[in-house]
Amino acid sequence: MSQDADLLLTRANIATLDPAMDGYGIIQEAALLMREGRIAWLGPQSELPAINPDVKTMDCQGQWLLPGYIDCHTHLVFAGNRADEFEQRLQGVSYADIARRGGGIRRTMSATRQASEAELLVLALKRAKALLEQGVTCVEIKSGYGLDLNTELKMLRVARQVQAHLPFTVRTTFLGAHALPPEYHDNADGYIDLVCNEMLPAIQAEQLADAVDVFCENIGFTLTQTRRVFEAASQLGLPVKLHAEQLSNLGGSELAASFNALSVDHIEFLDEAGIRAIAGSGTVATLLPGAFYYLRESQKPPIELLRKHAVPMALATDFNPGSSPICNLPLMLNMACTLFALTPVEALKGVTINAARALGLDDSLGSLSPGKQADILLLDIEHPNQLAYQVGINPVQKRWHAGKYTNMSLLY
Amino acid sequence: MSQDADLLLTRANIATLDPAMDGYGIIQEAALLMREGRIAWLGPQSELPAINPDVKTMDCQGQWLLPGYIDCHTHLVFAGNRADEFEQRLQGVSYADIARRGGGIRRTMSATRQASEAELLVLALKRAKALLEQGVTCVEIKSGYGLDLNTELKMLRVARQVQAHLPFTVRTTFLGAHALPPEYHDNADGYIDLVCNEMLPAIQAEQLADAVDVFCENIGFTLTQTRRVFEAASQLGLPVKLHAEQLSNLGGSELAASFNALSVDHIEFLDEAGIRAIAGSGTVATLLPGAFYYLRESQKPPIELLRKHAVPMALATDFNPGSSPICNLPLMLNMACTLFALTPVEALKGVTINAARALGLDDSLGSLSPGKQADILLLDIEHPNQLAYQVGINPVQKRWHAGKYTNMSLLY
Ligand SMILES: [Zn+2]
Ligand SMILES: [Zn+2]
Repeated sequence: MSQDADLLLTRANIATLDPAMDGYGIIQEAALLMREGRIAWLGPQSELPAINPDVKTMDCQGQWLLPGYIDCHTHLVFAGNRADEFEQRLQGVSYADIARRGGGIRRTMSATRQASEAELLVLALKRAKALLEQGVTCVEIKSGYGLDLNTELKMLRVARQVQAHLPFTVRTTFLGAHALPPEYHDNADGYIDLVCNEMLPAIQAEQLADAVDVFCENIGFTLTQTRRVFEAASQLGLPVKLHAEQLSNLGGSELAASFNALSVDHIEFLDEAGIRAIAGSGTVATLLPGAFYYLRESQKPPIELLRKHAVPMALATDFNPGSSPICNLPLMLNMACTLFALTPVEALKGVTINAARALGLDDSLGSLSPGKQADILLLDIEHPNQLAYQVGINPVQKRWHAGKYTNMSLLY
Repeated sequence: MSQDADLLLTRANIATLDPAMDGYGIIQEAALLMREGRIAWLGPQSELPAINPDVKTMDCQGQWLLPGYIDCHTHLVFAGNRADEFEQRLQGVSYADIARRGGGIRRTMSATRQASEAELLVLALKRAKALLEQGVTCVEIKSGYGLDLNTELKMLRVARQVQAHLPFTVRTTFLGAHALPPEYHDNADGYIDLVCNEMLPAIQAEQLADAVDVFCENIGFTLTQTRRVFEAASQLGLPVKLHAEQLSNLGGSELAASFNALSVDHIEFLDEAGIRAIAGSGTVATLLPGAFYYLRESQKPPIELLRKHAVPMALATDFNPGSSPICNLPLMLNMACTLFALTPVEALKGVTINAARALGLDDSLGSLSPGKQADILLLDIEHPNQLAYQVGINPVQKRWHAGKYTNMSLLY
């Protein structure tokens, strides 16, 4: 990726989201210098050191600079949609009948298996562009609709290609243990053998995954099966994450903590023992209010206990065709506040610094401070508390990824 | 507004939303001819009559044509925002304390009174542009943050100006009886005198309002006060609407029905007697799921009874700074289905034909049929049931208002 020249942003208000600072990490009447794709300096404009006078300068006219948003949990690569199932359900057809008609995750699996890599890429780029326009600069993408070796590889290759076509940092996660494919009906352990002994080594040989995830749930995989996948991942040096405690408390988060998981995700049913465990392992709690909303759940994640144990909370779309067809990260800011009673600053940390932590990228992404990658948004707002409050009016005026300006009008 | 030349759209799928047809009113492999801002012909392409061969043609390549969306209940004109109150509430400050600190609707009133017409217009246009990009072609805008003669006039003038700056059909509604201004503390009847005897005649003299609305609620105005405003409006020949039955059942909808109100809006607490009344008067039930969501309400509007009595249901954003800071009409399609269990086709009718009814505009807007205004969207979808299902990816490819093509890139 070509680097833009140095750029000095002046007369800005900055919400750094720097965890070393309080709250939003606000610096008013500030300046920020980008150099070689990184943040070279930022601070009050009055303290700006002498700078080469040839450096290009942009007057922000009091608008706000924030770190680019990070969507740290998506299933962005898939074929087909399940709008007709949504419609049938609202017409009174039961989940069981929809499954009997071939609906549910297996339908997405079939469509994804049948789609070519090129077709999947077109679909993924359309979705990624929507996130890009919302201010997202880094996105995690999971596999898990192939449930066979070739399709899992195909999905991860497509996920990697998103980064080649659009100015994003993409992190890929192998989620072979997402659901049981029809070939392994009544043989979940046999499928876990396949995941551990064939899929994982093949994926690692192509360096296609940055992390490994499992759907650990009474309707998913057991604790024992999850442990086997985590052990295989660990042997390959891959960090793990977990879909955990969404519908019941199986103790997945404690298991994940014992593997120093990057994050446990959903966690509506997480209890204090689990929270103590992830607090000890530095594991991020990733909240997915879109799925909570779409599935009309009532059990909320244990926000007070997460606060009590100082567990970092991330926030993501969980964009997927079955339980969160919501490709809108700014909306998650509002939903986290409205549905889970997060404060606006907690919500904003959830899509910046804590989302970076959930991907193991907090050394380089997620906040504005010297040395970090220059993933920066210029926003037309009066205060960052507006970002969780107002929905539907996109405040993104400009966007830089790794110091490179994104010309939105050239994306189409 | 200048008219574009005739335009023939070919190879389209059309969801007409024509109430004379079933469901979405789908015509596949269809064509549509626009002439002088209206729909001159539409139907199966195989039945297309002979047309002047010089007519400009556009191949829709199987994409979908729908009527432009109508947001039939907004408070789009106001100054200030209440993000800090949202934040304080989530930090544990009570509503009462926020009010004591000068928060709530009176804060919006003060900011709106202080803003110039030009300032209000800039703010309104920013919001209207967001709706425009979402596919909205007609928007209703209420006054009601002035609560004094001059500011109510100012708000309505700004609302009218939106139509001069952006390709929308704007309908304005005078909502002087929105809240009690501090000048009339403990004298609600005195304020209603002002509304009826001074505001309404002045507004009518400038032809600034297309309808008159009241906030009838135990925290708003009484039935008797509402009746007085309705009588004054009727004497001026203005149709009425009502914010009714949001927090309790006062019988506002029955009163509204007796004045042949265009719509009753919110109606979470509406009972069957009220539904019978509005069914008899042809009054539309306008559902506002954004406010329901944002206020974390639990009492849902009586959808089954509305269906039973064949009351047309409209759907709107209620965009406003206090109870629905959500300027996103497509999101309301999903919320209506997810929160109120509307079917996708009911939701889509709610932002097209039934929204047109709620504004008294169903003769010219809200569906695609010959003679209607050519407010048309070209959407990148596989089926219209996707529109309520998927959130965040804007399917709008092209937009025409009154037959005139909207060049989105020229709006900024
Ligand atoms: Zn997920
Ligand atoms: Zn309203």
